[in-house]
Amino acid sequence: MSRVRVHNFSISLDGFGTGEGLTIEAPFGHAGHRLHEWMFATRAWGEMTGQPGGSTGVDNAFAQRNGPGIGAEIMGRGKFTTQTGPWTDLGTEDEWRGWWGDNPPFHTPVFVLTHYPRPSIEMEGGTMFHFIDASPQEALDRARAAAGDLDIRIGGGPTMVREFLAAGLIDMLHIVQVPILLGRGERLWDGLEGMDERYAIETVASPSGIVHLTFTRRP
Amino acid sequence: MSRVRVHNFSISLDGFGTGEGLTIEAPFGHAGHRLHEWMFATRAWGEMTGQPGGSTGVDNAFAQRNGPGIGAEIMGRGKFTTQTGPWTDLGTEDEWRGWWGDNPPFHTPVFVLTHYPRPSIEMEGGTMFHFIDASPQEALDRARAAAGDLDIRIGGGPTMVREFLAAGLIDMLHIVQVPILLGRGERLWDGLEGMDERYAIETVASPSGIVHLTFTRRP
Repeated sequence: MSRVRVHNFSISLDGFGTGEGLTIEAPFGHAGHRLHEWMFATRAWGEMTGQPGGSTGVDNAFAQRNGPGIGAEIMGRGKFTTQTGPWTDLGTEDEWRGWWGDNPPFHTPVFVLTHYPRPSIEMEGGTMFHFIDASPQEALDRARAAAGDLDIRIGGGPTMVREFLAAGLIDMLHIVQVPILLGRGERLWDGLEGMDERYAIETVASPSGIVHLTFTRRP
Repeated sequence: MSRVRVHNFSISLDGFGTGEGLTIEAPFGHAGHRLHEWMFATRAWGEMTGQPGGSTGVDNAFAQRNGPGIGAEIMGRGKFTTQTGPWTDLGTEDEWRGWWGDNPPFHTPVFVLTHYPRPSIEMEGGTMFHFIDASPQEALDRARAAAGDLDIRIGGGPTMVREFLAAGLIDMLHIVQVPILLGRGERLWDGLEGMDERYAIETVASPSGIVHLTFTRRP
């Protein structure tokens, strides 16, 4: 059976996966870029964005695991847009098509969880956004049907990762803990008491200052 | 000037320094011993408790830094006892004198913060418990006067460590992050947004599975 994976999910030392005050200009709110600077410094990021150079050590080794073997992604609406409620821009010239330009870095079907379904959007490079109102298990069934033998990536944000963890649906979870204190925002770990017992957990500190935590579900 | 230090302060992955439901039998509540098993496995702990053996690697290197150079400790009442409110056992045969037996491992003056001052208790081996109703700064002034040129240890629990951090009084903070999810209890990091900017932070993962975080105040 294909696996359900989370990669490169960054949280602060106090457990926040986003800050407060999310806008189109500041998709992580007052956290700014601080949760993801480690990733921007890697060669994997450079290759994806067409920048030369980048680090090739442990941070890069983790970062580049994000893509291979993935046949579909499931993301929360909050990762696709900061809009909430009914879509107001459908069919307009300014219709929002995500943060990622005409050729998003997914190259697979992407299922966006929302209480407001809307027509799918086909992008260049193989990315197709589907908008579905579904439980975690239902969304996973849809994604598996689309992904064939390949794995499913759970893309975030923190609320939906937490929901998939609470539902026991995640096989591999890669968390990056960044040594900053955000103080406010959306926490990843709330309500997951005892979850550690269901996983083998490996921890490695990077010379860059971050910590990589890998949770592998026990058989 | 003497330094203000925190050592071996253990928290869960979700940031709790104690669990819920603290009693005399379970001083860390539903956390049990899980936050401190790493310490019990060290040679430093064995030497303190008269047990032979124990690990001599990185966990032990950190654990044994707890004692040397300390001239006084400040602790919250919750570390001394699970009693709250007015003391009810003063002068009785069962008067509570802490968890640590007749010869506690402090061997210095210990200032216990409480809204209910009471007479000091002299123990064997140089430990003297003083019970004072004081702000963090006032308590630190008292402890410094007692400690001479030596350093002050801030002993916990999480609430009082957080208060001393918020007041900007801590020079060196050693946090041990244990890969468990407690889900409930008392958090260390609440309300400390941006505190990381005032410290140099070093992180090392131990083969035992825990992470040592060392915060050194910037000059």
